[in-house]
Amino acid sequence: MDSLREHGLRIGDLDPGPRCSIADVEGVRVGHVTVVRDEPGVARTGVTAIVAGATVSEPLRAGVAVLNGAGEMTGSLQVAEWGVLETPVYLTATMAVGRVYDGAVAAAVTADPAVGVESVVIPVVAECDDSWLSDPRPVHVVAADAGRALEAASDVVEQGGVGAGAGMVAFGFKGGIGSASRRAGDAMVGVLVLANFGERRHLRIDGVPVGALLGDVALARPRPAGSCIVVVATDAALGSAQLERVARRAGLGLARTGSTAHHGSGEIFLALSTARGPEEPLDIDAFFAATVDATEEAVVSALWSAETTVGREGRVAHALPHEAVLELLEAHRRIGVR
Amino acid sequence: MDSLREHGLRIGDLDPGPRCSIADVEGVRVGHVTVVRDEPGVARTGVTAIVAGATVSEPLRAGVAVLNGAGEMTGSLQVAEWGVLETPVYLTATMAVGRVYDGAVAAAVTADPAVGVESVVIPVVAECDDSWLSDPRPVHVVAADAGRALEAASDVVEQGGVGAGAGMVAFGFKGGIGSASRRAGDAMVGVLVLANFGERRHLRIDGVPVGALLGDVALARPRPAGSCIVVVATDAALGSAQLERVARRAGLGLARTGSTAHHGSGEIFLALSTARGPEEPLDIDAFFAATVDATEEAVVSALWSAETTVGREGRVAHALPHEAVLELLEAHRRIGVR
Amino acid sequence: MDSLREHGLRIGDLDPGPRCSIADVEGVRVGHVTVVRDEPGVARTGVTAIVAGATVSEPLRAGVAVLNGAGEMTGSLQVAEWGVLETPVYLTATMAVGRVYDGAVAAAVTADPAVGVESVVIPVVAECDDSWLSDPRPVHVVAADAGRALEAASDVVEQGGVGAGAGMVAFGFKGGIGSASRRAGDAMVGVLVLANFGERRHLRIDGVPVGALLGDVALARPRPAGSCIVVVATDAALGSAQLERVARRAGLGLARTGSTAHHGSGEIFLALSTARGPEEPLDIDAFFAATVDATEEAVVSALWSAETTVGREGRVAHALPHEAVLELLEAHRRIGVR
Amino acid sequence: MDSLREHGLRIGDLDPGPRCSIADVEGVRVGHVTVVRDEPGVARTGVTAIVAGATVSEPLRAGVAVLNGAGEMTGSLQVAEWGVLETPVYLTATMAVGRVYDGAVAAAVTADPAVGVESVVIPVVAECDDSWLSDPRPVHVVAADAGRALEAASDVVEQGGVGAGAGMVAFGFKGGIGSASRRAGDAMVGVLVLANFGERRHLRIDGVPVGALLGDVALARPRPAGSCIVVVATDAALGSAQLERVARRAGLGLARTGSTAHHGSGEIFLALSTARGPEEPLDIDAFFAATVDATEEAVVSALWSAETTVGREGRVAHALPHEAVLELLEAHRRIGVR
Repeated sequence: MDSLREHGLRIGDLDPGPRCSIADVEGVRVGHVTVVRDEPGVARTGVTAIVAGATVSEPLRAGVAVLNGAGEMTGSLQVAEWGVLETPVYLTATMAVGRVYDGAVAAAVTADPAVGVESVVIPVVAECDDSWLSDPRPVHVVAADAGRALEAASDVVEQGGVGAGAGMVAFGFKGGIGSASRRAGDAMVGVLVLANFGERRHLRIDGVPVGALLGDVALARPRPAGSCIVVVATDAALGSAQLERVARRAGLGLARTGSTAHHGSGEIFLALSTARGPEEPLDIDAFFAATVDATEEAVVSALWSAETTVGREGRVAHALPHEAVLELLEAHRRIGVR
Repeated sequence: MDSLREHGLRIGDLDPGPRCSIADVEGVRVGHVTVVRDEPGVARTGVTAIVAGATVSEPLRAGVAVLNGAGEMTGSLQVAEWGVLETPVYLTATMAVGRVYDGAVAAAVTADPAVGVESVVIPVVAECDDSWLSDPRPVHVVAADAGRALEAASDVVEQGGVGAGAGMVAFGFKGGIGSASRRAGDAMVGVLVLANFGERRHLRIDGVPVGALLGDVALARPRPAGSCIVVVATDAALGSAQLERVARRAGLGLARTGSTAHHGSGEIFLALSTARGPEEPLDIDAFFAATVDATEEAVVSALWSAETTVGREGRVAHALPHEAVLELLEAHRRIGVR
Repeated sequence: MDSLREHGLRIGDLDPGPRCSIADVEGVRVGHVTVVRDEPGVARTGVTAIVAGATVSEPLRAGVAVLNGAGEMTGSLQVAEWGVLETPVYLTATMAVGRVYDGAVAAAVTADPAVGVESVVIPVVAECDDSWLSDPRPVHVVAADAGRALEAASDVVEQGGVGAGAGMVAFGFKGGIGSASRRAGDAMVGVLVLANFGERRHLRIDGVPVGALLGDVALARPRPAGSCIVVVATDAALGSAQLERVARRAGLGLARTGSTAHHGSGEIFLALSTARGPEEPLDIDAFFAATVDATEEAVVSALWSAETTVGREGRVAHALPHEAVLELLEAHRRIGVR
Repeated sequence: MDSLREHGLRIGDLDPGPRCSIADVEGVRVGHVTVVRDEPGVARTGVTAIVAGATVSEPLRAGVAVLNGAGEMTGSLQVAEWGVLETPVYLTATMAVGRVYDGAVAAAVTADPAVGVESVVIPVVAECDDSWLSDPRPVHVVAADAGRALEAASDVVEQGGVGAGAGMVAFGFKGGIGSASRRAGDAMVGVLVLANFGERRHLRIDGVPVGALLGDVALARPRPAGSCIVVVATDAALGSAQLERVARRAGLGLARTGSTAHHGSGEIFLALSTARGPEEPLDIDAFFAATVDATEEAVVSALWSAETTVGREGRVAHALPHEAVLELLEAHRRIGVR
């Protein structure tokens, strides 16, 4: 699929990595299990796993931040206390968190012989609410989907309505998984979002009020709702306190796309470093800028990648209208002439 | 079973309720499912549910606090953000959290027709690590145990090695579930702890360094580890900000028993109010004192109530030696002459 | 002075109050003391007071939030703990905070006979660093300037390089005090910023990357630095937990203007309610949107209002070039044709 | 003056340093300026400075924690954000914070030529409310007292009613400055408290409910009030995240003495490391235990060291009755026979 970048959109002034995805951070891969069925109960849901090599025996440094806490990320208290991540990061639907946690425990036991013998594990499982498109009962995801998402992990990051993104809606359009990357000096910063937030009228793409200008497009979910989980990865040897600060900046990227962090929204962010050596002093401002820009682009990419989806009770989440958006971006000089 | 209170111990200067348990708060009940078996895998584990009437449609005000975050309480981010509790509070073993979450979702769907139709639910499930006595793999608890714990809920609170407390160890003795209550003016404050923390040498009962003085008793788990979940309930119409402050005081009660909040410990606290009317201005200091005293007594009660338990690999967690403790308390003038 | 609003700029879709300033919230007034002199030491500094009627005896509900804590707001711990504000909010330069605190104590003693007899007071004094333009030693502000700023308080809010804004720099242009308002249903939300943050290349006005496009304008302060204090006021009867959440949204407004919350920046926010009656349940999302939009406009207004200023060592902070900005906004269809 | 330690009291099982004070941490010194006068206004107040070598150019790693935020520690937001301390830590009375901040800025300018040229400084100034004994208006401390406290700094730590402790009251007795130390393996942990908190009936010394048992002693300040600032210093190369965790444990030491962290109390804690080399992995539990024990002993030491003080309006804060306390400790087997 094409991308707005291929059409000339440049968000911010930093360069992306070759894939412009979180997989530009060496060692980071993403796997999806998408659950789509119509009986029993309409399922447009799934599981996404972000794999960076963290295990209980060999954890990675990490930090978390919460902009609005109307959501869930299991393990976040432990990441905050210890500054380390011990498992992959799993994304799924709200009422499926328990099953994915259960499957993630089983996967951790398989991956690391110490788990369950010398120690236990609290996996990181985060959620958004996809119940506008996907009937949340019965819960469609099963525990084994966690392990399947790990097996599917690849450095080619599928985006849009896949995995945990299958049933998500953002800014009244079909949302889901998005990803982008930026260079911060010699280091790479990659971002993956599960975008399920925002009101149509607030959507901005690179500053252009696309949502307000596309006023007559058929509208999904009328009331503000939803959440946005953001995972930031870097290969730089940041310490956990710095990673917590990086995580906090994800909210600034969301703000640029039109987020006001609704009451009912879970804006929960995790940043991790794949570097296992000692923490290095680095120009943290470069990481902040890279995170904000990449988060903004990842949300836009989720919207651009997602396709129109019919869900529960015939509800339709329309894809972003590509042609109309390109025209607006050109009229506002964000692509073509600048 | 008797209690140290019956032997004359009086922690603090406030009066308890008639049961000296969290069930002194009207409408609060506690249910246990205890899973004890030797094959396959040694299970000394379970689920405990604290039921106070909270549902998604009719939530209760609540607050959370974290003293040391090396643990998990799902739903805690949402309680912190919204100041309300939407489900019972479930306690279990670390690696069983996913299953209990899954069962709690099913129970919420059953209890509240709106769940899964108009909204989703994030249940509150907290854990301690019982893997010194109970083999954590395979996970022994099943999702349906959440509902069974609800069905078992009663205003007679069983304490010690029951429910989630079955495999817990505290201060090198057998620990588990403990409860106590105190009056704060006209209101009632009840506390329930899942005690799984502390080093033998640090144990103090009402100020008497019992752990140091009982030096020659056979020792359980040598290294410091474990956690302590504390649930505080009151019938007073406190607001959520006040309840968060009340929750924070639970740590002061743990400190009096000898907690230093170990690195590996999850000291996570939740306070809830059963009052549904508007918040009332109250003398919050009375609630702070009641919480500290009741938390201290609940930990002592967990130790006093628990019986010697043989677990995984023949490991033995001894019961607190009642006679020796009574002698020490008398010699130090905490019972008998004062 | 004119404003970008008069030129047709409309940030967001909510209506402002009649003044489009924090003084649209009834009872809120703003006073400045501007200290400009060249000997001894170049002073381009001052004090700004936001007066909303809070005293120790009659506090107002309030909440605080920190996006990046490299700054100071005295009293913020107490506002966070108690959820109330007991004094005006004072703004000044970093090294002058002590003197303004001292003057604010004296003013509180004068204003409220109970202070210093039955109770003490911790005033709220926040700061940004104006030392690029203003020699910070000796400290130029004196304690009495706090009281003078109170006396100067008016519902006509002067903006730009006045009061605490005299020496501030934002996005490489002259910054300082900015203000704006928005209606949230029947309620009013007013915002005042002390803008002293951002990098030229990141500046966006209503989504147009003005900073990058104005590349050849002479540059002030080369390295990223500075801070941004934001005060949000509303006449709605929000509780303190809701006000804390409102304060948190100020950062989203800053993000839209180009903030990445630099390492060296103190992004500290306070929200207050002038309503003294009981908290009312309100559509909090409307307040979030109003706060984000008004914060964005307040920053733009600070830049638009400020005039070129020559400071310490001949350094020049240029005013935003009005004509060039208007051309860019028109070319990008933010004013004129839309 | 003698100490309870000389009488045989041993709190916890760790060894103290040679002075059993914060000055056992090499490089840490403490200076007091005590302001006592009867006209105009009764002054029983002062300034205490804890000097550890931190400057803007050569900061020390540090962390802060808040148990109850009804107090003030300027600079705490910056310590939390950056994890470093840039100035001495100053203690004083609530309404004198501004003047001490002002004097501390002047001292920082003198100490570090970069301050005010290349950077600014936010000094750390914390407070307790001594207004029960000391008339808070007029403010008696002057800015220059900050520098005088630095000049007075010594490794012999005077305790009791000196410096900022001159007018403090704890548990209904005369309180003030207390200090103690403990070894954590090869490292030293020193604690200094400004004790101005607690209710008589809650006072416990090494677990003995001394306050309740001393019921007939004349009582100071009837209502619960006050605060407790705790500064923890270590020579171990802990990182700032670990120091924040250490700071959090100070509250557990206060709890053992009888603190319930009253509504009106500012329990604010700072921990610093004098080690300038890279962070080292250490057994953090040893530091937690040392901090809890030393904080408990420091509070007891403050009470034991303070002398009966007559203050404002003839109010009397009595010294702890030494003989009666010794008898109680012996009867409860905490000294003499154990």
